[in-house]
Amino acid sequence: MKKSIILTFIIALWSIASFAQQALGGATNIISPEVHNNQTVTFRLLAPNAKEVKISGDWMPAPRSADMTKNADGIWTYTTSALASDLYMYSFFVDRFKTTDPNNVYLIRDVATVTNVFIVGNGKADLYQVNNVPHGTVARRWYDSPGNNKKRRITIYTPPNYENTNEKYPVLYLLHGAGGDEEAWIALGRASQIMDNLIAQGKAKPMLVVMTNGNNAQEAAPGESSMGMYKPSMQVANTPGKMEETFPDVIKFIESNYRVKADKANRAIAGLSMGGGHTINISRLHPNTFDYMGVFSAPGAADGNAEYDKTLEQQKANGFKLYWIAVGKTDFLFDRVTAYRAKLDQMGFPYKYRESEGGHTWTNWRDYLSEFAPMLFK
Amino acid sequence: MKKSIILTFIIALWSIASFAQQALGGATNIISPEVHNNQTVTFRLLAPNAKEVKISGDWMPAPRSADMTKNADGIWTYTTSALASDLYMYSFFVDRFKTTDPNNVYLIRDVATVTNVFIVGNGKADLYQVNNVPHGTVARRWYDSPGNNKKRRITIYTPPNYENTNEKYPVLYLLHGAGGDEEAWIALGRASQIMDNLIAQGKAKPMLVVMTNGNNAQEAAPGESSMGMYKPSMQVANTPGKMEETFPDVIKFIESNYRVKADKANRAIAGLSMGGGHTINISRLHPNTFDYMGVFSAPGAADGNAEYDKTLEQQKANGFKLYWIAVGKTDFLFDRVTAYRAKLDQMGFPYKYRESEGGHTWTNWRDYLSEFAPMLFK
Repeated sequence: MKKSIILTFIIALWSIASFAQQALGGATNIISPEVHNNQTVTFRLLAPNAKEVKISGDWMPAPRSADMTKNADGIWTYTTSALASDLYMYSFFVDRFKTTDPNNVYLIRDVATVTNVFIVGNGKADLYQVNNVPHGTVARRWYDSPGNNKKRRITIYTPPNYENTNEKYPVLYLLHGAGGDEEAWIALGRASQIMDNLIAQGKAKPMLVVMTNGNNAQEAAPGESSMGMYKPSMQVANTPGKMEETFPDVIKFIESNYRVKADKANRAIAGLSMGGGHTINISRLHPNTFDYMGVFSAPGAADGNAEYDKTLEQQKANGFKLYWIAVGKTDFLFDRVTAYRAKLDQMGFPYKYRESEGGHTWTNWRDYLSEFAPMLFK
Repeated sequence: MKKSIILTFIIALWSIASFAQQALGGATNIISPEVHNNQTVTFRLLAPNAKEVKISGDWMPAPRSADMTKNADGIWTYTTSALASDLYMYSFFVDRFKTTDPNNVYLIRDVATVTNVFIVGNGKADLYQVNNVPHGTVARRWYDSPGNNKKRRITIYTPPNYENTNEKYPVLYLLHGAGGDEEAWIALGRASQIMDNLIAQGKAKPMLVVMTNGNNAQEAAPGESSMGMYKPSMQVANTPGKMEETFPDVIKFIESNYRVKADKANRAIAGLSMGGGHTINISRLHPNTFDYMGVFSAPGAADGNAEYDKTLEQQKANGFKLYWIAVGKTDFLFDRVTAYRAKLDQMGFPYKYRESEGGHTWTNWRDYLSEFAPMLFK
């Protein structure tokens, strides 16, 4: 008798499944991309009417383009050579029209562009995967920023087990670059996956990671505020210095709403590009607040401005555990980072330096987070 | 002196902004879609080499296709007539190749298809917008489900001010359909926007909304578990009855981790399609657990199975506040919903019935949530 009920329900489920709302246009069973065990990757695209299909991927040397080959079914394919472990982005060009891969639902927005991604494991990108380890919680909240006279959206990672203990945790404040927002580190930066994995491996201490919106002109990421679904832009009308001035609003919110250790030894701040600039400025203007600074792909002022330098002298005099500067050899800011380092050297301002390959890229910023987080709170 | 520091920083910001990592392929200043004040919408697509570009949108009558017109700059445009307030989806066809709109970063995944969306306001879809009202928190967490022998991912909306009071709140458990997961209601269903707005207007009581993953074969949505970034499918190898059997794990998790009112009068459950089936089954198999049921576009068994009917009789005998059945006139399940209602009528099982236009669509499910939530906990 019970079986027939279950059977009825199976039939109901199947009929629902078969007829459920179809997205416009139909679907196929094409798998793309397919990451093979030998780290090669095959892409497939159904475009029977196209005369030419190319693929462009960020692992390719310039001009970043390769021809795809059409088979009898109208499916164009391309297989890479073995790729190093990383998170990659790619696009197709169908008769020179740039498009995403309709068979890959994994896309990430960077400013105003949405691009397909895939991960090749067996190396550093294992940290970017969701693995079978305890997972933290990721919350999108709104906090009050009296300094900006508005409520603002913020992304907060609490580590695995946070909800099940009475323990207090340290906090990493993690800042995005120009064109980014409170979604940048969690999406492009794979911050929650990196932290879950580093914590599971015992390489990083359990900590909160607080991802702010560094554009004081915004309440929230595009589409997440009452400004609606507008087209994102690099040109946000920020007031210079406002992010630095109002950062105590963020710290106050975190320390009065979460079970955290509210002292210098348990606060870290890091950021990329514009967020690296914010990190330099927030840490020197609030010079007894953070014991750990991570400056990714960003310079401070190197022009010998006395007032500016006085704040660095004060930061040095107060002391801290780590001031970590990382930059890629081909970063367009490399020379300015070098000039800033020369000034710090001259001042005897202690820092650690990490020079990587590559440039001003999320590949580097994921690496930097993966290296920086294990150095914190130890 | 201070001005020159700020000036230096402005220059640094601008140079960072100008040179920051470019997504593959470059960008243009095309705005698409543009929703005009008179509720018409203009779409634009740069495709200078294309011979034909069509647009397909879910507001169009069959065959859902319209020609776009090319201007001298190679930009194809199309403007709709005035559209009723709603959230819409659309695709372009460039020389018959189906593509998303590269100038619209707002996309939602439905099973294995990612589609652009836009909202036309001045009506019911004002509830789907992020408005200038207090916002709840949306958390992605993992909970332990001993019944499924796994940790599972869950999406939880806590209402505005939840964190700032000692108040206890009622809970709506909100279930997705086949092909969906714990991301469906928050993304396609605009659940957090609908709840923020209904609560701000005083139309719904502040409540938690708990969005589970109804596929017991999954730990989490595609891309969010150790199964990696696989292609989603309607065909998930679920064990029939397991969702119903293990639902107490979800309730236990919520009631031991959140400040909620843990009694029948303060529990509601609702779902669409497969989740409507789950709602019927969970509420009749745990017949003294929920005072409010919302069955969206789904039938129960109408075949007069005695054991099944006994559970409904028990549910009726225990009593409840609301059993709300909603279905669209052109839903493929309409006749089966009618048959189920006939059985309930025969049993004297009390329910309220809402018959809408349209079929098995998210347009209807957003409507149903917008109507159901205000009836709860009053």
